[in-house]
Amino acid sequence: MISITLFGASGRMGRAIAEAATGRSDVGIVAEGGDVFVDFSAPDALQGHLDAALAAGKPILIGTTGLGAAHRRAIDAAAERIAVIQAANTSLGVNLLSHLVREAAARLSEDWDIEIVEMHHRMKVDAPSGTALMLGRAAAEGRGVDLDAAADRGRDGITGAREAGRIGFAALRGGSVAGDHQVIFAAEGERLELGHRAESRAIFARGAIAGALWLHGKPAGRYAMADVLGL
Amino acid sequence: MISITLFGASGRMGRAIAEAATGRSDVGIVAEGGDVFVDFSAPDALQGHLDAALAAGKPILIGTTGLGAAHRRAIDAAAERIAVIQAANTSLGVNLLSHLVREAAARLSEDWDIEIVEMHHRMKVDAPSGTALMLGRAAAEGRGVDLDAAADRGRDGITGAREAGRIGFAALRGGSVAGDHQVIFAAEGERLELGHRAESRAIFARGAIAGALWLHGKPAGRYAMADVLGL
Amino acid sequence: MISITLFGASGRMGRAIAEAATGRSDVGIVAEGGDVFVDFSAPDALQGHLDAALAAGKPILIGTTGLGAAHRRAIDAAAERIAVIQAANTSLGVNLLSHLVREAAARLSEDWDIEIVEMHHRMKVDAPSGTALMLGRAAAEGRGVDLDAAADRGRDGITGAREAGRIGFAALRGGSVAGDHQVIFAAEGERLELGHRAESRAIFARGAIAGALWLHGKPAGRYAMADVLGL
Amino acid sequence: MISITLFGASGRMGRAIAEAATGRSDVGIVAEGGDVFVDFSAPDALQGHLDAALAAGKPILIGTTGLGAAHRRAIDAAAERIAVIQAANTSLGVNLLSHLVREAAARLSEDWDIEIVEMHHRMKVDAPSGTALMLGRAAAEGRGVDLDAAADRGRDGITGAREAGRIGFAALRGGSVAGDHQVIFAAEGERLELGHRAESRAIFARGAIAGALWLHGKPAGRYAMADVLGL
Repeated sequence: MISITLFGASGRMGRAIAEAATGRSDVGIVAEGGDVFVDFSAPDALQGHLDAALAAGKPILIGTTGLGAAHRRAIDAAAERIAVIQAANTSLGVNLLSHLVREAAARLSEDWDIEIVEMHHRMKVDAPSGTALMLGRAAAEGRGVDLDAAADRGRDGITGAREAGRIGFAALRGGSVAGDHQVIFAAEGERLELGHRAESRAIFARGAIAGALWLHGKPAGRYAMADVLGL
Repeated sequence: MISITLFGASGRMGRAIAEAATGRSDVGIVAEGGDVFVDFSAPDALQGHLDAALAAGKPILIGTTGLGAAHRRAIDAAAERIAVIQAANTSLGVNLLSHLVREAAARLSEDWDIEIVEMHHRMKVDAPSGTALMLGRAAAEGRGVDLDAAADRGRDGITGAREAGRIGFAALRGGSVAGDHQVIFAAEGERLELGHRAESRAIFARGAIAGALWLHGKPAGRYAMADVLGL
Repeated sequence: MISITLFGASGRMGRAIAEAATGRSDVGIVAEGGDVFVDFSAPDALQGHLDAALAAGKPILIGTTGLGAAHRRAIDAAAERIAVIQAANTSLGVNLLSHLVREAAARLSEDWDIEIVEMHHRMKVDAPSGTALMLGRAAAEGRGVDLDAAADRGRDGITGAREAGRIGFAALRGGSVAGDHQVIFAAEGERLELGHRAESRAIFARGAIAGALWLHGKPAGRYAMADVLGL
Repeated sequence: MISITLFGASGRMGRAIAEAATGRSDVGIVAEGGDVFVDFSAPDALQGHLDAALAAGKPILIGTTGLGAAHRRAIDAAAERIAVIQAANTSLGVNLLSHLVREAAARLSEDWDIEIVEMHHRMKVDAPSGTALMLGRAAAEGRGVDLDAAADRGRDGITGAREAGRIGFAALRGGSVAGDHQVIFAAEGERLELGHRAESRAIFARGAIAGALWLHGKPAGRYAMADVLGL
């Protein structure tokens, strides 16, 4: 049995992971000293959790969203000494979607406008979702551009006509939606729509546990859920 | 045959109306002096077009979007002397949708979060669309609140959890989409989704002509597309 | 505390109801002799369950789907002596949707083709779902026609052009979908889409319990979830 | 200028192609003796049109849907002597979608149920659409199975639980919908949804003309729209 030390255990995802681990014989949650660290807390707490994993010499899976460039640099630095997965979304479906979005963006010209819309429950505090940004990054990579330069977020008011090459984001919030995402490629007369719906947080919890099990014993480095899922 | 003087004739909707009128025996487009005025131009030009209709003593249908409170007051003032329809959307389907949204909002408690998402072609310059705001107004009326106070527009960044009672708006832009709208009522465990898709501007053009024909000969007053469509 | 005797307790909905009742102080599940009977079993078992409720003189809520005309006559007969609710779907959202569909169908001409599509989990054995048929019945009532005469089910092969006035049904099956329904009104150039998504069976379970509580003490008669939900 | 002889010129697609060709300097429609043949007629007429192309030694693009195994053998035979494209759908978006569906099906296990739903205008006479079957074939190829053996069409009545490995089809008909398609991969707790929407037949017409231009001068053989579109 692999033991997991879970940061953010009282949050929505933390509780879902604890619930998903209950009754499994291959994995258990421990308060400290686990074989693998899993972090679903808040951006401000990331550095402390990385330090704990580094001090213990254990791998860490980071599912916290809302991270910025400084957080990403800290993760890269940690990955030189321990195995790390940073994943905005741990479901198989979303990670495959991300691959398909990259492929579609690579094959379609800028005549196809890219828009990303997501819906999450009313308690979510950041917009767009980390998964929407991950999908946007996949689209930007496919197209060979930089997402930060191309992103149009929170469109409102007199915006003028849409500029070619932009990647738009829209965020819906309400009810208890676990997470719906759709990437739309819109051209003259037609639309390609690639999306994913999560029915509950259980799929993310199962994916996070799969990632933690996979990380156990891996050498230092930055890994992705695609590696875990065999994509 | 009823003659229509069309403001905004070179815009997308203006051209669609001219095309829809071609070959019809009951209606024709004239450069000036028409029996009815139809305005699909820009907010800044509204007052001039109202003045022209008032001077001629002719009814006017206003389809221009992006209007503010001052424009609305000007329309109310004009409606004391001539017949006026101001319509963000002249299709039968959208006007029925607006009625259904008002009804749903009246029957559902604030446990149901309301979100409105729309998609339009890449040339559209304002967001959210006039039709989305019309649907938001219907939802606000059903719930007995003021839309201006309840609207959440252009959600982006660290927003915090969603506040109960808000009405959210999101705008997608791309390709040649004539106009898609969806109103989502999201509660714990379920969602009600009420939407409309327009395949082309032809339906709006036909609706605008139907409105103009209906206005001909009507006494002064503020009318709605719902009256025209028999809703 | 009101006690419920539950038929079909080992099925998916039965287990969801038992789970939803756990820990509530106003309702409990008992093996027999309950204050209210709730039936989520199979059409063949309906008559026996009606007989049990009649013998005990207790009200019954029937959520079993796949019922035919003979079952409906048996329910009508029972409702002369006890209070009965027969509901294809016990969620607030779907029952409001049904009301909106009736209203839309009443206001739109036969130029608007009506199609109903639903998706459910892979274990569901009947198609279309009882809820889809309930929505079809609402549409047929709104239009003033008989659903049995108007329904087009399982369209496949060389069908010829669609006949005006028909109500089409399509059923998708897969994964663990709790229940998605959409009613589409399609005319020349535009579509009105009215739909509902259930995230889990918990909403149906809570609705069924609300119905059972509401039935307790009611005089004989045929009631609907709309009565329970105050629609 | 390349000249096209068009079979099925009076049908919906035929008229759309003629309209799309109007005013273009690189292509023209001729009654007979064209450089390329294009067939959007009916299955029964296919053999005659193949014979005409073979007799003239000219390439042919076949967009007729509802073809069976015998038609496919006739096309293969013709392709030994002339260049042939047989395409259920000539839009760039749908052909890319087909590629993505194949890829997704190849990477997902049979735990993911595949369902295909499409909507077309009320005049369409066959179901499911040729494009839906083309997408089903892509899914079957990705999964390494035979579509004819795996297809579940026109689900209705007491069907029993869904069998693993099946590919389901559902067809909606109504209004003037040019063609919407969605392929759903549904697993426990999540769904991947890959779809396409056509706003009008103009995109298919432009694609068919692009295919005809591309075919001109090509050696004998069976080609696909993916070749034309550079996918």
